[in-house]
Amino acid sequence: MSLAARILAGDRGALARVITMVESSRADHRVMGSSVLSEILRSSAGREGIERSFRVGITGPPGAGKSTLIEALGASYLRDGSRLRVGPRDHGDERDRKLAVLAVDPSSDRTGGSILGDKTRMPELARDERAFVRPSPSRGTLGGVTRSTQEAMPLCEAAGFDFSLIETVGVGQSETAVERMVDMFVLVVPPTAGDELQGVKKGVVELADLVIVNKADGDLIPSANRTVTDYSSALRLTSPKSSFWRPKVVSCSALSGNGVPELLDAFARYQDAIDQEVSPGTTVKVMRRADQRVRWLRTMLRDRSFDLLVQNESFSHDLREWEAKIRRGDAAAGEACDSLLRQVSIGT
Amino acid sequence: MSLAARILAGDRGALARVITMVESSRADHRVMGSSVLSEILRSSAGREGIERSFRVGITGPPGAGKSTLIEALGASYLRDGSRLRVGPRDHGDERDRKLAVLAVDPSSDRTGGSILGDKTRMPELARDERAFVRPSPSRGTLGGVTRSTQEAMPLCEAAGFDFSLIETVGVGQSETAVERMVDMFVLVVPPTAGDELQGVKKGVVELADLVIVNKADGDLIPSANRTVTDYSSALRLTSPKSSFWRPKVVSCSALSGNGVPELLDAFARYQDAIDQEVSPGTTVKVMRRADQRVRWLRTMLRDRSFDLLVQNESFSHDLREWEAKIRRGDAAAGEACDSLLRQVSIGT
Repeated sequence: MSLAARILAGDRGALARVITMVESSRADHRVMGSSVLSEILRSSAGREGIERSFRVGITGPPGAGKSTLIEALGASYLRDGSRLRVGPRDHGDERDRKLAVLAVDPSSDRTGGSILGDKTRMPELARDERAFVRPSPSRGTLGGVTRSTQEAMPLCEAAGFDFSLIETVGVGQSETAVERMVDMFVLVVPPTAGDELQGVKKGVVELADLVIVNKADGDLIPSANRTVTDYSSALRLTSPKSSFWRPKVVSCSALSGNGVPELLDAFARYQDAIDQEVSPGTTVKVMRRADQRVRWLRTMLRDRSFDLLVQNESFSHDLREWEAKIRRGDAAAGEACDSLLRQVSIGT
Repeated sequence: MSLAARILAGDRGALARVITMVESSRADHRVMGSSVLSEILRSSAGREGIERSFRVGITGPPGAGKSTLIEALGASYLRDGSRLRVGPRDHGDERDRKLAVLAVDPSSDRTGGSILGDKTRMPELARDERAFVRPSPSRGTLGGVTRSTQEAMPLCEAAGFDFSLIETVGVGQSETAVERMVDMFVLVVPPTAGDELQGVKKGVVELADLVIVNKADGDLIPSANRTVTDYSSALRLTSPKSSFWRPKVVSCSALSGNGVPELLDAFARYQDAIDQEVSPGTTVKVMRRADQRVRWLRTMLRDRSFDLLVQNESFSHDLREWEAKIRRGDAAAGEACDSLLRQVSIGT
């Protein structure tokens, strides 16, 4: 059986092996992995798995309790999946429920609050055959990690893991990258004292479809409630992200489980919103995913076409000289750009 | 006398003519304009004018009263410039004070709250020989408008207009683009009722060094005060933009003039902050401007190197075919990117 067929049959080993290929630093391995994905995209079983899936991105500062929350959310889903509608299948049988947890973590420093490269953070999910937990590659640029996750996601879905949680930490541009590959984007924060900075990166609040104030238990309940109010105000100050959904702020305790089933209810209501038709036969979700895929191609091409130029030795040498001049204030950037590009010729 | 020499002598006609060149849709005119700028950058008088200047970006939603505020700020500065320190010159003599107002407006619809393409919005400044008011070109992509403003700014400074206000409306990416070309970024908002959305774009609040709640007069004073509190909370929820300055929220009335001189005080305190040395002989301002110029070159190159590829007919044809496949879900973006770039060869 081909690797693609084995993945479509739900073979975890084949799935893990092909994800390792798309994550590889070797170009020939990546090409092999991509060709398995292409074969899957051309099969109707593969496309069905991808189409019925639901992708949720989860971000938040270190200390927000993201892993505990993902563990609690995953366990609640596997126990009582009927709250969440993942495509047309009947989830009355809990053996049908399958969940993938992927991580996007471009930080090279993986200690402390960063995503750990092992499965011990989510012991219950790691033991469950219905969950597929995959840490991100330990090194690599954001572009590389993002690409491997973009390809790992449909591979998992083809293998039946059709509810994906994509976790990222608040470093660099990873939140924006994750927001652009998921159906729903969730920000998790801890309760905080009034004046304290929460380490939430600029602009991330505005990307969120749902803000979860975690750790709302015991003594922290009053400050969790205040944090809910603070984020609700912050969200009111910006224009809404879309016309089909108004972002919400809720609290829960991943530790005690209080409020966790209600999170899945909020996910289900969000699914209702994105399953609305925008034109006959096309839902918000289908349209947004098509847009995401094309934008992703353009982003990759934009990055890599500049890289292609820089790989040219004479271009790269001249670029360094112009940059030094511009840094000193001896030349204008426009002049440098015109001059550098005038010397390039493109062949195909 | 060359155009560069005339600009350095403060000739408004020459300045306007060269700005028209850099704004032109004709490449040969733009090259002529850029070469005048290069000549200025190579003269010590030109570099001094640029180095002592202070660049403030001003954005805000339609209805915030940006033009009235710029008029009031400009008039206050020209009357009592000593509050603001623009480089080493003695501003005791008000004839030495000179102000440029430029606009970045990529919106094609210029009615309503958009920046109007004429000077009638700022009658007092338009009449004053010490002010140079320049609307942006009426059409063009953001990249084009941004480039012409990036080049117009040092031209104005070389002509002695060394306090620049760069105005933009909240559309598209223009706020980020403006924030990346100025020393200080200011958001102007109107007072609003508690629950009302203010039309402020996502992420813009976090870019602001100063938030000004305008129209704090008469009946609106209570809601202006509440708006100040709301924005102060919103700013506390995000990590600070830099280590040398903590963003502030203030209110004023551009109409009555209340609070306007205090805005110039806030500008002056910000100048103190960015004039701190980060290493011997280098201030925050000097270092940030060098970084801004190099980043701007990279941004232009990144945009235009992809454009170079797309201008190639065979590349562009293949790109369209891949995009259609990706939109339908028949191919993966990674596969498309690899295949498209494999066919390209770069020569210099």
